Amino acid sequence: MQHYDPGQPDGTNASLTLAISPDGTPEPGRTYPVEARCGIAVRVAKGQTLTVINPSGHQVCDFWAFATENMHEHLSMAHLHTTLGTIFPKVGDPLVSTLRRTLLTITEDTSPGVHDTVIASCDHARYRQLGCTAYHDNCADNLRMALIAIGLRAPMIPAPFNLWMNVPVAPDGVTRFAPPVAAPGDRMSFRANVDVIVVMSACPQDLTPVNGEGVAPGPLAFAITAG
Amino acid sequence: MQHYDPGQPDGTNASLTLAISPDGTPEPGRTYPVEARCGIAVRVAKGQTLTVINPSGHQVCDFWAFATENMHEHLSMAHLHTTLGTIFPKVGDPLVSTLRRTLLTITEDTSPGVHDTVIASCDHARYRQLGCTAYHDNCADNLRMALIAIGLRAPMIPAPFNLWMNVPVAPDGVTRFAPPVAAPGDRMSFRANVDVIVVMSACPQDLTPVNGEGVAPGPLAFAITAG
Repeated sequence: MQHYDPGQPDGTNASLTLAISPDGTPEPGRTYPVEARCGIAVRVAKGQTLTVINPSGHQVCDFWAFATENMHEHLSMAHLHTTLGTIFPKVGDPLVSTLRRTLLTITEDTSPGVHDTVIASCDHARYRQLGCTAYHDNCADNLRMALIAIGLRAPMIPAPFNLWMNVPVAPDGVTRFAPPVAAPGDRMSFRANVDVIVVMSACPQDLTPVNGEGVAPGPLAFAITAG
Repeated sequence: MQHYDPGQPDGTNASLTLAISPDGTPEPGRTYPVEARCGIAVRVAKGQTLTVINPSGHQVCDFWAFATENMHEHLSMAHLHTTLGTIFPKVGDPLVSTLRRTLLTITEDTSPGVHDTVIASCDHARYRQLGCTAYHDNCADNLRMALIAIGLRAPMIPAPFNLWMNVPVAPDGVTRFAPPVAAPGDRMSFRANVDVIVVMSACPQDLTPVNGEGVAPGPLAFAITAG
């Protein structure tokens, strides 16, 4: 514990070897997979658009963005809540950083718009609490490994923007994990306002209905376009 | 921006000089002030209880806890939501860390239990967005300065536990800033499950009704006891 390093994975999976290029720079227009249960990092330049695709409709994407020039500036759900006045971001909304700068703007969402901004990524400790004794793939490690795969290191694990994750919050504050309500092929697009490094994890949660009832966690896909 | 250091304040106030002792170790049983608009850090040893007092009832306390042995392990609101299944912690609830360890347990809350776990601390950028041109005291800087005052440095600004802050979240996700509903003298107590460094900021927000309508931000107080 004394040597806890937030950038160090608790175990490993293929995320360590799935980089789209040595430094995460994409080929514009190409569609890349986010393999099931894995994470991947991509550099999105100012003005470019990132589109994330949900082939099954029931697969959650843990999503983070770091300012390329300083990873201590990253997308922050707590700051987002103040800026937007809601816990549910929608098309046109700015996604703000720890410095309250707009890193990305949501430019498209073909789903009903149900996404989560209050729940932490799954991690090694979470699966141990759920009864796992062997290593279980997890989104926090996928973030760490996706960054290591392009030569970077997570300085911390920010609270994620959980695309398509369905966590209703009742008026009394009670939260629950419900299956996603997106449809197969739904997509979300984000225009970069500054150069960012985005990390996406195809959530490997298979012990709660976060990724749908009775289905295995699946892949996602993404592409970068010019506009 | 390239040199952004999350531990460096954007300005200064008396928080830099208000340490209760050189390393933040308290004298058990003594009641200490948290001066209005300022922050202060205190070491709470495993088994000790920290009681935070709200003299006016309408003063919000931004509250953070770091594991003494490694400040990268800190109280995390996103992890708390998963653990508790609610955004509103109450007496008996564990306050968990980025590693899902219980750092503190809420052992007393004389208020109606309305506290916030979704909104970021106020900071320099927030007050600029609210129209301030001169430096405005802010909770993020108070955290940074309170740690500097005891010889430490904030490795990041975690999302705070905002004691007595009243942010209703409607079923459609919309949040609003409402005045606190606590009464003068209300207090909350926390038993430490491990050695922690707690930082409290008497929120200096006077441009929204976060600390009450038409009243100036005021002080808080705290004490450490054995059990």
